Amino acid sequence: MKIVVLKFGGSSVGSIKKIIKVAEIIKTYKKKKYNVIVVSSAMSGVTNELVKKSKGISENFSDEEYDVLVSSGEQVACSLIAGRLIHEGFKSRSWLAWQIPIVTKGLHKNSRISLINKKKILKYIGEGGIPIITGFQGIDNHQRITTVGRGGSDATAIMIAKFLNAEKCIIYTDVEGIYTTDPNKFKKAKKIKTISYEEMLEMASLGAKVMQPESIQDARLNRIDIEVKSSFSKKSGTLITKRSNIINNKMITGISSTHNDAKVSLIGVKDKPGVAASIFKPLSKKSINVDMVVQNVSPNGKETDLTFTIKKDDLNKTKKIILDNKDIKFRNLIFKKGVSKISIIGVGMVTTPGVTFRMFQALASQKINIQVISTSEIKISVLIDQRDTKKALTVLHKEFELDK
Amino acid sequence: MKIVVLKFGGSSVGSIKKIIKVAEIIKTYKKKKYNVIVVSSAMSGVTNELVKKSKGISENFSDEEYDVLVSSGEQVACSLIAGRLIHEGFKSRSWLAWQIPIVTKGLHKNSRISLINKKKILKYIGEGGIPIITGFQGIDNHQRITTVGRGGSDATAIMIAKFLNAEKCIIYTDVEGIYTTDPNKFKKAKKIKTISYEEMLEMASLGAKVMQPESIQDARLNRIDIEVKSSFSKKSGTLITKRSNIINNKMITGISSTHNDAKVSLIGVKDKPGVAASIFKPLSKKSINVDMVVQNVSPNGKETDLTFTIKKDDLNKTKKIILDNKDIKFRNLIFKKGVSKISIIGVGMVTTPGVTFRMFQALASQKINIQVISTSEIKISVLIDQRDTKKALTVLHKEFELDK
Repeated sequence: MKIVVLKFGGSSVGSIKKIIKVAEIIKTYKKKKYNVIVVSSAMSGVTNELVKKSKGISENFSDEEYDVLVSSGEQVACSLIAGRLIHEGFKSRSWLAWQIPIVTKGLHKNSRISLINKKKILKYIGEGGIPIITGFQGIDNHQRITTVGRGGSDATAIMIAKFLNAEKCIIYTDVEGIYTTDPNKFKKAKKIKTISYEEMLEMASLGAKVMQPESIQDARLNRIDIEVKSSFSKKSGTLITKRSNIINNKMITGISSTHNDAKVSLIGVKDKPGVAASIFKPLSKKSINVDMVVQNVSPNGKETDLTFTIKKDDLNKTKKIILDNKDIKFRNLIFKKGVSKISIIGVGMVTTPGVTFRMFQALASQKINIQVISTSEIKISVLIDQRDTKKALTVLHKEFELDK
Repeated sequence: MKIVVLKFGGSSVGSIKKIIKVAEIIKTYKKKKYNVIVVSSAMSGVTNELVKKSKGISENFSDEEYDVLVSSGEQVACSLIAGRLIHEGFKSRSWLAWQIPIVTKGLHKNSRISLINKKKILKYIGEGGIPIITGFQGIDNHQRITTVGRGGSDATAIMIAKFLNAEKCIIYTDVEGIYTTDPNKFKKAKKIKTISYEEMLEMASLGAKVMQPESIQDARLNRIDIEVKSSFSKKSGTLITKRSNIINNKMITGISSTHNDAKVSLIGVKDKPGVAASIFKPLSKKSINVDMVVQNVSPNGKETDLTFTIKKDDLNKTKKIILDNKDIKFRNLIFKKGVSKISIIGVGMVTTPGVTFRMFQALASQKINIQVISTSEIKISVLIDQRDTKKALTVLHKEFELDK
């Protein structure tokens, strides 16, 4: 049985007109003899409206009731999609998470899907039905409604694809795919045809907001091909797949940039075991996300300099934690706002020497100063002055031939 | 265990501010050491908005999906009420119909509650929790969401009261209770303190829109006391109870009036068995509701005159059915728009002679012509010219001392 999972995001089902369009898309797959399973988000704006209501009731609105509240949004969207398909003469119905069930583990507002019972859905598609499944939600062992904190409806779609052995999972959204860099910031950005899970993971966690990293990781672990495309255009999108499926791979697949970062440098820290932990443990406890971390080699073996980046909004909290903690000893503390992290990403760089050199040379040619460097197997990140972001994107895009 | 069921209508939970007020009301019962069970409707306007969406999708929107769609409204209201009580330090949670479950029979959009599993709810209130139950909805044997067509959330509240042996069921709405006649039409209308199920049934089906007849009938059959009161006022409401609980009963409890009625008279109909059926069967098939029916005694034993009332909107359909049906034979057909049915209702009239006479005399004193008369054990209805409605209400209200 050839199964395809189609997932529609909030913007794709944002109005009655758009839902009618979604039904048209579903029909094209049915015509291609696919067994179609649909996963839908809530109509755009609805979840925000519900969250606003909850805040009117209490600033600390119950997590359990939050899940009951917001899950109503997908219920509405799914019944409307199913209603449209029935109107068009198809066999279709909405399936709420509890009716399948989609079982989750973990805390309310932040659950993870642990099991999807495939029995009823398989039977239903076997009878020619098109199931329209509520994304983003599940039930726990106490039969209470939960929501999937990370990845949301994408996570639902990918787990459905996994448990039902779907051939492919197609994520319909309001952009045409994944771009070499953010097309809103840089007009020459090009749509990527195929990208590996690993590259996409780096792209996602570095600012490409199309899909959440957790969902991509789930797809990677379960080897599920994902296509990201727009429900408003007939153009093909971006295929996210395993490395071995990608041919004619460019050295660099994409460039990502962050903004609103801040840099913290501790100068003259004692160079002994446990020092980094004594700094990062209290930050982690206060949910401050530390990104790039660089520790210089200590020339005399006694002292070292430690630099890391955080979100600009966390700067004051971080300052207070470091200054209040008597265990953290240093000679000097430097903060710097207005920095941006530029990363080039590509599985190709693993086998190609000289990528780092070409990146640094390109930036130098534009007189862009590199403040911090950090690298992984398929990514090189540099911290630069935020004002140089656009210049850096332009020169790197050209250097690695992403315009072509 | 002293249980009270509180039901809040859409207008009572129509905004965040009103929901916060509802939580205050719930707390007062908790303070009186009641075990409180709450049933809520959707926030006012929400159901209409959802129905509008369904019509945008299809003029013949699927009944099954309609139930999924509109049931989301109560889910939202209940999570918000529970969220508020939790915020105030109470143990509370929303219970969706499927979680209890509330089992229904019958067609989608028009189901009836057949069974409520009391186990989980009893355990929960035993632990001091305040369950907030979604009104208007249930699940069928296929685990699909259904809605209770007749009586809506009132029906849910009364069935909860029945299955959980509640002491009382309190219906919170936007009026202060049941009035001797429609207070919008007649300013001297007085709130009724107590009314029997039977009288309330007559009042409800004759135009008092506070509760649907089906819910009152359910309450009567299960001997559940209902109090109807306003969530916006601290005044006591109206108690609907069994006749034997009512002391100092007035002869007449209330007066109801209809408008937009029409009268149909068939003159010179053959006076033989089956004639009435041949007329009313085709009307019933087309869902035309026939109200008052009067057949005059035939003086010669061969011919008779048949008069009945219908809604004015059904007049053209009715005309067509009668004229098209060759089985219906008559000499003359008369239609009259602009008639109104005035009914006086009271269990007291059973034991008090002369009520009919006093009613007719009062109307005659105002020169109001009676066109048709029909009576039941606790009700006398007359058909009059619609223009005389207000005059009739005034004189009858005074005659039967309802102003006092």
